[in-house]
Amino acid sequence: MTRNPGAGPTPVTVLGLGLMGQALAGAFLRAGHPTTVWNRTAAKAEHLVAQGGKRADSVRDAVAAGPLVVVCVSDYDAVHALLGPLGDVLDGRVLVNLTSGTTTQARETAAWATRQGSTYLDGAIMAAPGAIGTADAVVLYSGPRSAFDLHESTLTSLAAGTAYIGDDHGLSSLHEVAVLGLMWGIGNGFLQGAALLGAAGVDAAAFAPLARKGIGMVTDWLTDYAQQVDDGTYPALDATLDTHRAAMEHAIQESEFLGVNAELPRLIKSLTDRAVADGHGGSGYAAMIEQFRKPSGERP
Amino acid sequence: MTRNPGAGPTPVTVLGLGLMGQALAGAFLRAGHPTTVWNRTAAKAEHLVAQGGKRADSVRDAVAAGPLVVVCVSDYDAVHALLGPLGDVLDGRVLVNLTSGTTTQARETAAWATRQGSTYLDGAIMAAPGAIGTADAVVLYSGPRSAFDLHESTLTSLAAGTAYIGDDHGLSSLHEVAVLGLMWGIGNGFLQGAALLGAAGVDAAAFAPLARKGIGMVTDWLTDYAQQVDDGTYPALDATLDTHRAAMEHAIQESEFLGVNAELPRLIKSLTDRAVADGHGGSGYAAMIEQFRKPSGERP
Ligand SMILES: NC(=O)c1ccc[n+]([C@@H]2O[C@H](COP(=O)([O-])OP(=O)(O)OC[C@H]3O[C@@H](n4cnc5c(N)ncnc54)[C@H](OP(=O)(O)O)[C@@H]3O)[C@@H](O)[C@H]2O)c1
Ligand SMILES: NC(=O)c1ccc[n+]([C@@H]2O[C@H](COP(=O)([O-])OP(=O)(O)OC[C@H]3O[C@@H](n4cnc5c(N)ncnc54)[C@H](OP(=O)(O)O)[C@@H]3O)[C@@H](O)[C@H]2O)c1
Repeated sequence: MTRNPGAGPTPVTVLGLGLMGQALAGAFLRAGHPTTVWNRTAAKAEHLVAQGGKRADSVRDAVAAGPLVVVCVSDYDAVHALLGPLGDVLDGRVLVNLTSGTTTQARETAAWATRQGSTYLDGAIMAAPGAIGTADAVVLYSGPRSAFDLHESTLTSLAAGTAYIGDDHGLSSLHEVAVLGLMWGIGNGFLQGAALLGAAGVDAAAFAPLARKGIGMVTDWLTDYAQQVDDGTYPALDATLDTHRAAMEHAIQESEFLGVNAELPRLIKSLTDRAVADGHGGSGYAAMIEQFRKPSGERP
Repeated sequence: MTRNPGAGPTPVTVLGLGLMGQALAGAFLRAGHPTTVWNRTAAKAEHLVAQGGKRADSVRDAVAAGPLVVVCVSDYDAVHALLGPLGDVLDGRVLVNLTSGTTTQARETAAWATRQGSTYLDGAIMAAPGAIGTADAVVLYSGPRSAFDLHESTLTSLAAGTAYIGDDHGLSSLHEVAVLGLMWGIGNGFLQGAALLGAAGVDAAAFAPLARKGIGMVTDWLTDYAQQVDDGTYPALDATLDTHRAAMEHAIQESEFLGVNAELPRLIKSLTDRAVADGHGGSGYAAMIEQFRKPSGERP
């Protein structure tokens, strides 16, 4: 199975039509790719069919429809449940897996796909479904460069920010958890603050503009923090860890006083206590990288 | 002691010349306010004197120099160590405390200041020292509105974003820990990600642009999250909590696999497990507010 130059846009298969899969298939259709779709719950294909998508009756038929197969389901177990029984129909095709997982799962799936005769790219979507197909979306790919190059223009239908990050299949998953951790950090920080202010009668809506301001401040420091992390020196750009640590104690006391969950500020202060005990009381926040780099042992 | 209309810019006293106090005094000087400074370690006043500041020999002399006294030291214990022994010299002056603390400390200090015959404003600085006096800085004030109104134009020398948020003296401290929590959330999320990627040989500098992208995504959702928090309904705007929870498990496994600290992803997943157990697996991230609102009991 090869690309057919001159025959128009590459046909694409999308397996999995959850929140994300529907967005992926919709973007391929809008970009003019003949798109075959399949979902366990068939009804989710309906509005894609209305937009010109072709619904396959089986995973096998869907995969057989073209050279490029994109799978986006809940987890890797679901990926293997779908693709495991297919036999040689994957042979010669490029399989792009946009399902979230671990680096180990990505590498194991790559080895399995290679045994099926297919070429495997693992991808990580850094976008909400609503942003798929727009300038705001980023999707990172890892695996064989040649497969990415072959289908780059097709994959760019999903995200203006389409990028290849290396041949180790685990890299995209690792970047995904790195970015998600940051996103949860913001979400949790906002919700902890909203809970505190809410206990004092201040609306989350009133907090949002101020939260945006705080986010903007840290975002401006990120380049310097990153440089310090890479250099291993942490001069205080804003406040010292001693100053942050004192404020963390206030966050704990305030949470306890107002009957709000204090686990997050307690953990943050515990990590900071260790950084200060390691001699970083006068350092800037980036010195905390040394705590994040330390293994925390088995799960309690 | 009253403002002296027509006599030029209000004279200001700044007590405490740490990273932040020096920035505050510098901004008052640049705005043309006669500025008297005092610091425990006197040498820190030197370059402010070179810019036209007047160094007082004692806290008492510093306070006596004008109608508006700004204090910014490490903590409220230091505030009381400085001001406690002064007797009636605070009488008739406005005391603005920009030291970080808890709502309880702010309220107690307000009561104490009132007993000295002074008018008390508590403030919270949302800016790094380098941003003081610029359009980027935000400083929030709580306490008697009349004192804020009297000195608003002077205080605006410190921050274009000067705002009065209410007469409860605790409000500025509470807003401060709310915003700081968000800032730590970003810092920790970035450092957790940098530790993970670093273990795979990816520089923090290479992570920074992607991190900025992730931050931008969540920032765009903040208005909707805030609305959901205030409404108490949490439709999934991007992914469901079930999907997030699966990815949190990946973050834990990846951290353990790479020998990186896993405490933060473990806590985040533990909070999410509870939200899912409460029936929010199909809800969006804002449903986590219900977990943040629950008291977590005594410190372990
Ligand atoms: N949503 C986001 O914002 C977002 C962002 C980045 C990455 N992702 C990743 O994208 C993937 C899909 O997310 P989503 O939001 O689309 O989730 P979702 O709405 O919950 O959809 C899950 C999809 O997986 C299918 N599925 C689950 N188990 C299956 C099985 N055993 N056999 C066959 N199909 C199965 C479901 O089929 P049914 O319809 O039959 O249940 C559905 O199509 C996840 O790995 C997620 O982490 C999502
Ligand atoms: N830096 C920031 O980015 C930032 C941002 C927002 C809010 N704040 C808040 O601003 C306050 C000051 O922070 P900073 O960054 O300026 O801290 P800093 O650089 O550590 O300076 C601390 C100041 O407090 C003085 N001090 C401490 N204990 C004292 C005592 N017992 N008696 C007299 N003076 C005492 C110190 O005097 P010596 O010079 O003699 O030691 C110094 O002037 C803190 O509450 C902090 O949370 C800081």
